[in-house]
Amino acid sequence: MRILLINPNTSRAMTAKIADAARGVAGPDVVVDAVCPAVGASAIESHVDEVAAAAAVVELVAADRDGASPADAYVIACFGDPGLDAARELVDAPVVGIAEAAMHLAAVSGRHFGVVTTLSRTLGRAHDLVARYGMERACVSLAATGIPVLDLEETGSLAVETIASHSADAAAGGADVIVLGCAGMADLCAELTARVGVPVVDGVAAAVGMASGMVRMGLGTSKRDEYALPARGAAAPTLPPQAANLEVFA
Amino acid sequence: MRILLINPNTSRAMTAKIADAARGVAGPDVVVDAVCPAVGASAIESHVDEVAAAAAVVELVAADRDGASPADAYVIACFGDPGLDAARELVDAPVVGIAEAAMHLAAVSGRHFGVVTTLSRTLGRAHDLVARYGMERACVSLAATGIPVLDLEETGSLAVETIASHSADAAAGGADVIVLGCAGMADLCAELTARVGVPVVDGVAAAVGMASGMVRMGLGTSKRDEYALPARGAAAPTLPPQAANLEVFA
Amino acid sequence: MRILLINPNTSRAMTAKIADAARGVAGPDVVVDAVCPAVGASAIESHVDEVAAAAAVVELVAADRDGASPADAYVIACFGDPGLDAARELVDAPVVGIAEAAMHLAAVSGRHFGVVTTLSRTLGRAHDLVARYGMERACVSLAATGIPVLDLEETGSLAVETIASHSADAAAGGADVIVLGCAGMADLCAELTARVGVPVVDGVAAAVGMASGMVRMGLGTSKRDEYALPARGAAAPTLPPQAANLEVFA
Amino acid sequence: MRILLINPNTSRAMTAKIADAARGVAGPDVVVDAVCPAVGASAIESHVDEVAAAAAVVELVAADRDGASPADAYVIACFGDPGLDAARELVDAPVVGIAEAAMHLAAVSGRHFGVVTTLSRTLGRAHDLVARYGMERACVSLAATGIPVLDLEETGSLAVETIASHSADAAAGGADVIVLGCAGMADLCAELTARVGVPVVDGVAAAVGMASGMVRMGLGTSKRDEYALPARGAAAPTLPPQAANLEVFA
Amino acid sequence: MRILLINPNTSRAMTAKIADAARGVAGPDVVVDAVCPAVGASAIESHVDEVAAAAAVVELVAADRDGASPADAYVIACFGDPGLDAARELVDAPVVGIAEAAMHLAAVSGRHFGVVTTLSRTLGRAHDLVARYGMERACVSLAATGIPVLDLEETGSLAVETIASHSADAAAGGADVIVLGCAGMADLCAELTARVGVPVVDGVAAAVGMASGMVRMGLGTSKRDEYALPARGAAAPTLPPQAANLEVFA
Amino acid sequence: MRILLINPNTSRAMTAKIADAARGVAGPDVVVDAVCPAVGASAIESHVDEVAAAAAVVELVAADRDGASPADAYVIACFGDPGLDAARELVDAPVVGIAEAAMHLAAVSGRHFGVVTTLSRTLGRAHDLVARYGMERACVSLAATGIPVLDLEETGSLAVETIASHSADAAAGGADVIVLGCAGMADLCAELTARVGVPVVDGVAAAVGMASGMVRMGLGTSKRDEYALPARGAAAPTLPPQAANLEVFA
Repeated sequence: MRILLINPNTSRAMTAKIADAARGVAGPDVVVDAVCPAVGASAIESHVDEVAAAAAVVELVAADRDGASPADAYVIACFGDPGLDAARELVDAPVVGIAEAAMHLAAVSGRHFGVVTTLSRTLGRAHDLVARYGMERACVSLAATGIPVLDLEETGSLAVETIASHSADAAAGGADVIVLGCAGMADLCAELTARVGVPVVDGVAAAVGMASGMVRMGLGTSKRDEYALPARGAAAPTLPPQAANLEVFA
Repeated sequence: MRILLINPNTSRAMTAKIADAARGVAGPDVVVDAVCPAVGASAIESHVDEVAAAAAVVELVAADRDGASPADAYVIACFGDPGLDAARELVDAPVVGIAEAAMHLAAVSGRHFGVVTTLSRTLGRAHDLVARYGMERACVSLAATGIPVLDLEETGSLAVETIASHSADAAAGGADVIVLGCAGMADLCAELTARVGVPVVDGVAAAVGMASGMVRMGLGTSKRDEYALPARGAAAPTLPPQAANLEVFA
Repeated sequence: MRILLINPNTSRAMTAKIADAARGVAGPDVVVDAVCPAVGASAIESHVDEVAAAAAVVELVAADRDGASPADAYVIACFGDPGLDAARELVDAPVVGIAEAAMHLAAVSGRHFGVVTTLSRTLGRAHDLVARYGMERACVSLAATGIPVLDLEETGSLAVETIASHSADAAAGGADVIVLGCAGMADLCAELTARVGVPVVDGVAAAVGMASGMVRMGLGTSKRDEYALPARGAAAPTLPPQAANLEVFA
Repeated sequence: MRILLINPNTSRAMTAKIADAARGVAGPDVVVDAVCPAVGASAIESHVDEVAAAAAVVELVAADRDGASPADAYVIACFGDPGLDAARELVDAPVVGIAEAAMHLAAVSGRHFGVVTTLSRTLGRAHDLVARYGMERACVSLAATGIPVLDLEETGSLAVETIASHSADAAAGGADVIVLGCAGMADLCAELTARVGVPVVDGVAAAVGMASGMVRMGLGTSKRDEYALPARGAAAPTLPPQAANLEVFA
Repeated sequence: MRILLINPNTSRAMTAKIADAARGVAGPDVVVDAVCPAVGASAIESHVDEVAAAAAVVELVAADRDGASPADAYVIACFGDPGLDAARELVDAPVVGIAEAAMHLAAVSGRHFGVVTTLSRTLGRAHDLVARYGMERACVSLAATGIPVLDLEETGSLAVETIASHSADAAAGGADVIVLGCAGMADLCAELTARVGVPVVDGVAAAVGMASGMVRMGLGTSKRDEYALPARGAAAPTLPPQAANLEVFA
Repeated sequence: MRILLINPNTSRAMTAKIADAARGVAGPDVVVDAVCPAVGASAIESHVDEVAAAAAVVELVAADRDGASPADAYVIACFGDPGLDAARELVDAPVVGIAEAAMHLAAVSGRHFGVVTTLSRTLGRAHDLVARYGMERACVSLAATGIPVLDLEETGSLAVETIASHSADAAAGGADVIVLGCAGMADLCAELTARVGVPVVDGVAAAVGMASGMVRMGLGTSKRDEYALPARGAAAPTLPPQAANLEVFA
């Protein structure tokens, strides 16, 4: 089984990190590949970035689908789940967003979860996703650390400190489980779990788990109506070739 | 006062038609300009199209903002309200989507409304918007006519027939008001009102009304946090120049 | 176009003030008249007052409708939107409440708004309206300043101070936009906007904007079933002539 | 214990009928009195009627409160629960609306209930009450028979036939319990229960049961803030004396 | 009329106390009997306890139903309402849970209520019940005192102090009414009401009031489909005889 | 990795069937064991059955936990998810219900799903679960086939015919995905998928997929407060040893 992990920002370092995290939790029969666009937003921290990210997801999924050996499942590795609906139109395979997966698994791990994310300006999108996935009762807090996505690389232990502190606040406020609100936090999950004392969910791992389970049981994307291949999307997406030279982290 | 109407598909005929509809309901002190992208989706009928439409909206709003005389308000003239959040980040002026405006005004015109739209595959997006705008109680039906957007031009009276029939069904089922689910139906609104016997709301007109009211009272987009100008969006959006030669219908 | 502004309390000073506010934001083609009842509640600050206010609204709308030149739209200028459903039964024209209008426009200006109002005992009614208009997700706070309606006149700058302080608290708590919860605050809107740093919405201006937009597009009140003229309401309302000598602020 | 039953329309025959129904289910220690206004709406079938009804409720409750032996509890015997919030401001005793009581008891009698009422134009108000009382999940249908309130008197067995038919439809559609949507149906409850085969709830009986239970346990209306006596309501309501010669059905 | 009060834990002292509380508020025509299981959980403070409690409720209701003089109504005297749905399958009579009854009456006594309960680990169950009974808008706070159920007996005035303090916090936070979240607090209700200054609702009293009202009006449990007697439940429940020697507090 | 599948009814044949279905979709590194109680309900088709099922789940989980090699995850293989909260208190490992898992995966496979289940009397429980898991928007239909659980074994192709027919109706009504509402349908999933033309989700497979994904990423049950081991549950559950001679299908 092959899962394609799509990082919709252009950070090669972050893509490699996410791929590592995914491989660490994938079953023995799962191959994880990862890609990111060659041009576009360097981090997804605004609605404008989300628009660029969605365009990148569409292109990367379509390119893989039209390649020699299309993936058995696709994971969108950005907490805003950009382009999720569009990607589902393009393939029969399951497409799983990391916010979606993290919330679904967090709701199984405990009654209430809290999201700890990067910049406060992204909380609006998180609110939208909580509503879209039916998590209004399960999600009891959305907190921003103020750490920009790309600073997660550099700040290292300081980032852990800040995220752990917000996570502890969320737990004190009623969260049984913490959801990490950025793919770039994937490598911090184990350390945070140890420090916070409640389960911490990384969406990349969650999505790989859900996607591989779906593949094993033969469950793909429903092609009934909404997610059927669009007439004009059959040959190729209508977007410009912004990401022609994909970086593949196989 | 100048309002910029953004049709995110590439149909010049439809853009001209929408501009006419908007001008017919604008106050005497309002100038309506209209634009559409030079390349992109010819109609917005899938989530893949929505991604392209959002990218077009971002570019067109940014281009106008950076032009000689930026608009006092922006209207996104596609019923999926693509790129609405992103456009709000780019300007201080109000940005109004036509689905949003139509639903808000329909909720003032009667207790319950029904949406009549084009293809059934777009109903998922409509469901999302109903939830996003808090219209779960107000919206009692979502119906698709099966008419593709671009066929609205050609089928003429047949389209009116079909839309009127679905509207009558919606009214019989409890809708006090009908919301037209496509900008391309703007020119049919008066005829449909006469035939269906309940108010019929065209989102283009609704959005122009809301936007001009907001401009008169000095109410723009809140720039607090979520909709503040993104750091990387200050100079120019991160999208490729897909719509370089904008068609302006001034 | 003529809009009739209905202040359902008996304060002539407040009626004049509201009329001024409305005229300041009306389009060049809009005439705003204002009326208040001759007897009734001097301010609307309790459910008992709401009952009196609703009765006044019914009478004043019916009297105007039966007059020589009925208005093209009616605005109920009290934040409880008293008598809104009843007034809709009486006329074909649009009827817009100021709470309703303020919330709809606030939801377009930003994702989340907070309401700042007068006495805490009115918050229950505000909760009801938030639910009725589908604003549970958009409205993130309801705060009372403790200032009685009629003290807004006298306290001047002190009132601004208190309202600004509560508005700042609401913004700090996540409100992108502030909604003023009393028609009597209409004249403070501009000053508050300047002080608070986020958009502040006065419902009177909002309602005039929505109502005039509706008139221009030919959108009135749906007369299907619920809002059809009641059998016994055709000739005259069944209420006593409490407001015989209407004060008209034309 | 004395319960005052308030019929807010002017029908003496209906008031007597409701009083009989209430007495039939009251405990041995409960005295039921009934009143109706001398002038006002002859039936409550529109929002305009609701406004008149609310005014009547305020007056009748205040008059009883200021009388020689105020009631221990008040029941508002009209399915729109007009004036409920206002009446709660006026007294310390419990005030129970019949729609409210019927829905609360129906939700204990089965999982899902359906409401069968008079004219379809009243369904909007019923929707509001379902939401206000938190019954969105419990209430699975709202159906109108088309029978005007006052025709319930005259049509006798025909009315039973029609209501039974709509009740059977509701049961077939998933309603475990039927709620009668008009006080004027109180005398038909037993016959309907026998015919429909599922429990049928008359709100008058339900409200008397809830109110007397509240009195026995010392539970009145909370006077904290919202329902505290209004400053201007202490002496007398601000409404005109429309119902000076109350009809008392003691 | 005979009401059977079912305490699903094994505490004889608590059963006697609850029975006293119930008798104090029952009408003159109501006999209250009380039972508890001979073996099982000594207090219901976890989901594991809830499972045992539900089993006890099923047995005790079935045993009473099959006895010489079955009760006219059943009250489940544990705030988790364990076994409520199952008990409804077993009898035609009304079955009322004390959480359910307390919330319904609290919602009639004021707009917003707060629950004050025992251990924080039971709040999850309380959240579930708030949702099940449609009380998301009415219930504004859920607070745990940290007092284990059985300590309520011993700590006496200290428990009152703690519960009163949490109740006052709830009232300050917007609760018009306090709901006591444990049957074992039934005897403290009067004292708490006096101290807190807002109505305090004991679910045992509330349930006895609702149940006796339902009996008087002939309203039992709907036997349509969901709550019809199960095929295998007709003779006897499928549970082991854990409570063979029932303690009856008649 | 070892997953324990708990069938809470006493059918050995059904337990074996479920175990087969689970093994067919488990990863190569997963061992699936299955157990059922020796005494109890032969099928779970009522709330009384649910109570017995919850008791069985508690015992079976506790027995496994206290055994030589406790499982790494537990799956409750009954669509009512009986005892789910209680089981979570007893172990640190993940506990996944099949209704829960099926709904979470169905929501990833398409926007809207429909549940097709056995007897209509179980729909109430299904409604509760839909609300508990936040699936009110995702779940668009709940349909009962009328086939008792144990008849699924015997009726073979007739059952497939009936379930397929209800599934097709659900798809025609807007369901993108079908959720099978009984563990006993696990072996029919592939055939149904082929016939219905939209994805069909078997909860047993879904739960095994989610549970194994959770184990791989180190995500168990949060032990914060609600799901911490109960004081009295540490040694052994408080239930009688009804299932002493467990049937283990290893």
